[in-house]
Amino acid sequence: MSAHIPVLTGDGAGNGLLKASTEIEKPLQQGVVPTTSSIASKVWNVFLVGLSFALIFNSEYDPLLACIGFSVLAYVITAVSIPILGPDFVRVGFSGRDLGKKHRPLIPETMGAVCAVVYLVTMFFFIPFLFYKFLVTETSGSGNREHVLDTSTLHKGRSLRMFPHSKLAEFLAALLSLFSMLVLGVADDLFDIRWRNKLLLPAIAVLPLILVYYVDFGVTLVAVPPFIWKICNPSMVSSVPPIVDLGMFYYLYMLAMAIFCPNSINILAGINGLEAGQSLIIAIFLLFNDALYIIPGRILGLHPPHPATEAHLLSTYFVLPLIAVTIALLKYNWYPARVFVGDTYCYFAGMVFAQVGILGHFSKTLLLFLIPQIVNFIYSAPQLFKIVDCPRHRLPKLNVETGLLEPSRVYFGVPPKGVQLLLLTTLGKVKLLDLERDPDSRTIRSSSNFTVINLVLTWTGPLREDKLAVLLLGIQAGCCAVGLIARHTIAPAIFGRDNL
Amino acid sequence: MSAHIPVLTGDGAGNGLLKASTEIEKPLQQGVVPTTSSIASKVWNVFLVGLSFALIFNSEYDPLLACIGFSVLAYVITAVSIPILGPDFVRVGFSGRDLGKKHRPLIPETMGAVCAVVYLVTMFFFIPFLFYKFLVTETSGSGNREHVLDTSTLHKGRSLRMFPHSKLAEFLAALLSLFSMLVLGVADDLFDIRWRNKLLLPAIAVLPLILVYYVDFGVTLVAVPPFIWKICNPSMVSSVPPIVDLGMFYYLYMLAMAIFCPNSINILAGINGLEAGQSLIIAIFLLFNDALYIIPGRILGLHPPHPATEAHLLSTYFVLPLIAVTIALLKYNWYPARVFVGDTYCYFAGMVFAQVGILGHFSKTLLLFLIPQIVNFIYSAPQLFKIVDCPRHRLPKLNVETGLLEPSRVYFGVPPKGVQLLLLTTLGKVKLLDLERDPDSRTIRSSSNFTVINLVLTWTGPLREDKLAVLLLGIQAGCCAVGLIARHTIAPAIFGRDNL
Repeated sequence: MSAHIPVLTGDGAGNGLLKASTEIEKPLQQGVVPTTSSIASKVWNVFLVGLSFALIFNSEYDPLLACIGFSVLAYVITAVSIPILGPDFVRVGFSGRDLGKKHRPLIPETMGAVCAVVYLVTMFFFIPFLFYKFLVTETSGSGNREHVLDTSTLHKGRSLRMFPHSKLAEFLAALLSLFSMLVLGVADDLFDIRWRNKLLLPAIAVLPLILVYYVDFGVTLVAVPPFIWKICNPSMVSSVPPIVDLGMFYYLYMLAMAIFCPNSINILAGINGLEAGQSLIIAIFLLFNDALYIIPGRILGLHPPHPATEAHLLSTYFVLPLIAVTIALLKYNWYPARVFVGDTYCYFAGMVFAQVGILGHFSKTLLLFLIPQIVNFIYSAPQLFKIVDCPRHRLPKLNVETGLLEPSRVYFGVPPKGVQLLLLTTLGKVKLLDLERDPDSRTIRSSSNFTVINLVLTWTGPLREDKLAVLLLGIQAGCCAVGLIARHTIAPAIFGRDNL
Repeated sequence: MSAHIPVLTGDGAGNGLLKASTEIEKPLQQGVVPTTSSIASKVWNVFLVGLSFALIFNSEYDPLLACIGFSVLAYVITAVSIPILGPDFVRVGFSGRDLGKKHRPLIPETMGAVCAVVYLVTMFFFIPFLFYKFLVTETSGSGNREHVLDTSTLHKGRSLRMFPHSKLAEFLAALLSLFSMLVLGVADDLFDIRWRNKLLLPAIAVLPLILVYYVDFGVTLVAVPPFIWKICNPSMVSSVPPIVDLGMFYYLYMLAMAIFCPNSINILAGINGLEAGQSLIIAIFLLFNDALYIIPGRILGLHPPHPATEAHLLSTYFVLPLIAVTIALLKYNWYPARVFVGDTYCYFAGMVFAQVGILGHFSKTLLLFLIPQIVNFIYSAPQLFKIVDCPRHRLPKLNVETGLLEPSRVYFGVPPKGVQLLLLTTLGKVKLLDLERDPDSRTIRSSSNFTVINLVLTWTGPLREDKLAVLLLGIQAGCCAVGLIARHTIAPAIFGRDNL
């Protein structure tokens, strides 16, 4: 019960917010709401809910089935919730203008928060199913027990001895990190946190996870390719396997992963469907990779199962629901977007990737799937670190006449000199930038902005937004496929063994 | 990097939100910002930070010292952050009008979110200190190890065998529940979630905690007073101790606690300082109660320590930082309030209480501290459950001429009949309501609203807001004191033993 008139709730006539909300009612009603009202989609949703319940309640000893069931359910809930909540999000101020469209419609923003909340609540309900085996075998019959229990039992309780407490702690720590990212994402969407502060916050979010890693896994060893090993230790006989203990540096590396993944997805963004699309592709490839470890033991019945099977099962439990909520989000975020995903989604998805990489101890494989993000980050670095001017928005510019997107540009008031000039001309020569020079003095007047999106546009020429998205997602999928193949062909050749 | 012009960030000139934000700039600059700028308070804060670091880094094997240190730090961070973030909160729409003041100033709302975030981040950093003993003893010397580790170690890792995984899981689950409440609270402050939905959401938030309780404690036994035991089992000889296993009902009871605590604090609200004040008092009494278990073992050196010591230490670790952030919040929320705490704070504090009660297995003691909330809930029930009309706001009404608060009233268009009439006349007769009757027909025209705050005002007559708050907090402290004494005097007499 509120102690005052809440300004946001629509009963305070005449305040500024309401004006904003009535102004944007039209595009919302056109865009978001009607999409789920068709009878076919309702029947489909009911079918999916039935399917999910069937999977969940017949899963008993198989968490994977339950996870698939919960994922299907998460998809339906997200898909139904987004159009319902869209107008509410706009009402409270989560909205933004789509600059890639002629009339710059105002649409709901931060819809990733819906995905994140559905994801997390799903996970809450999934926990008992994940540990069902241990809960049932150890406490069966407890309902009928008639023990006379003494007072000390009242204080100390019982403990399920076979129960994998460390696994539960891992799972809870991962959820805790994700919750932190949700809060951080929403805070960023609300308050537009400064770049520097944002960068470090995921490192705080991931602290519990790293503690649990330290406690329950503690492996800070990395395999080193034998030829590097030989270069570094020419005097030593090759010890097999050549493994180096990174010690504390491994923890710093994990922190770096936690900072990199969320932020790198957040900067490869700006056109409809790209943030959710790239996350979907990365997640699907992570699932492929997990399957390579899980299938031999589960489907083909190989014994003993691969020692990393458990780690990859855990990864699957985190990735599957992400795929589900992302597909639902993409339905509304694909061109022409009716909602924006917000920084919240990018952070959240990035954190899921970081933590499956950390918990599953395959963060280097993960990096192979993030090649477009790494390239974009390195390519963006001159602007991110202010070596070259960085305009507030670097997303491609709509040419209103053609309806196509063109690379956005940074204009130099003062002709660039020194390092800046060297960087621009070098990149310009190798076609990694599109430079505009003064016809007389040949000084550089402007350059395309330093993002992979703009780079692709300078190569292809103007494209419609959805074609550009498809092209970029194609590149993402191609990179992931090459990464996955490299992981299981080239890497084993270099390292002398595949841990598959 | 954003894909669009964010409407909230102040670069979209001409939208409605900005008008709202400029309109309220003045009261903010008068109220919130200057309070921390005095040199004395800066020196004081620097001293406190120094003190906290001294405590944290000299705590080594004593988590309690580290917890005190972190709490002091949390206090400083919260106290410094609230005035800084206030204007930002107003800018994005977290604001409300203070109806208890003549000019109804618009002040920042949802400031409990700052407390909650500081609290949770503090807890993240506290975790390693809580388990320092186990981390150091088991991994000492690991920096120098030169083991040749085989490939399976890479996959399976090591596990600290002595490490209390179940304790860590408990701690993480508790934090997870608190994070859920933060998200729920902010969502409620933003979207004004419907009463029915709100009620059930804490039950979802507490799921991980209940699972951990099931796994690691699993006690569903409650002590029964021997005389009740004899009434129920007249034929049986008195078994000592008379303990009943509630089984599943105990879990339902815990769910009910998780729903009741946050909501009950949220409905005993409406005047400056009351929400934070009552939470502070409850928290201090919880700390007193914990001390009764901890001090004999720690300070007086009694052996063996009380079996519930660990549970009460855990409770202390959660309660101390809450006290710290609440004191900081109260500095700004006390009459005349410069910020509102928001539903976020009420939910968050309530959930801290619920979970220390659950994890410490002293939820019945907790209920003794919540007597004013229980009374308020029962007294409010006729309006909450729509037996009697419930106006949108039930907080006391300001008499602009006297500057004093008077009970707010519900007016009956149609004279009440049946159950409603019976209830009103009965409560009116025992002075639990202030009724206004039609001078001619003697039918009831209006009644004071059904909240403890209004009830106190009908007894005392009009009061200034701060005096009313002091009176209500005095009642809270009195009830808690009586509860604490009853817990350790009357309860042992009834149950035949004190578990102190």
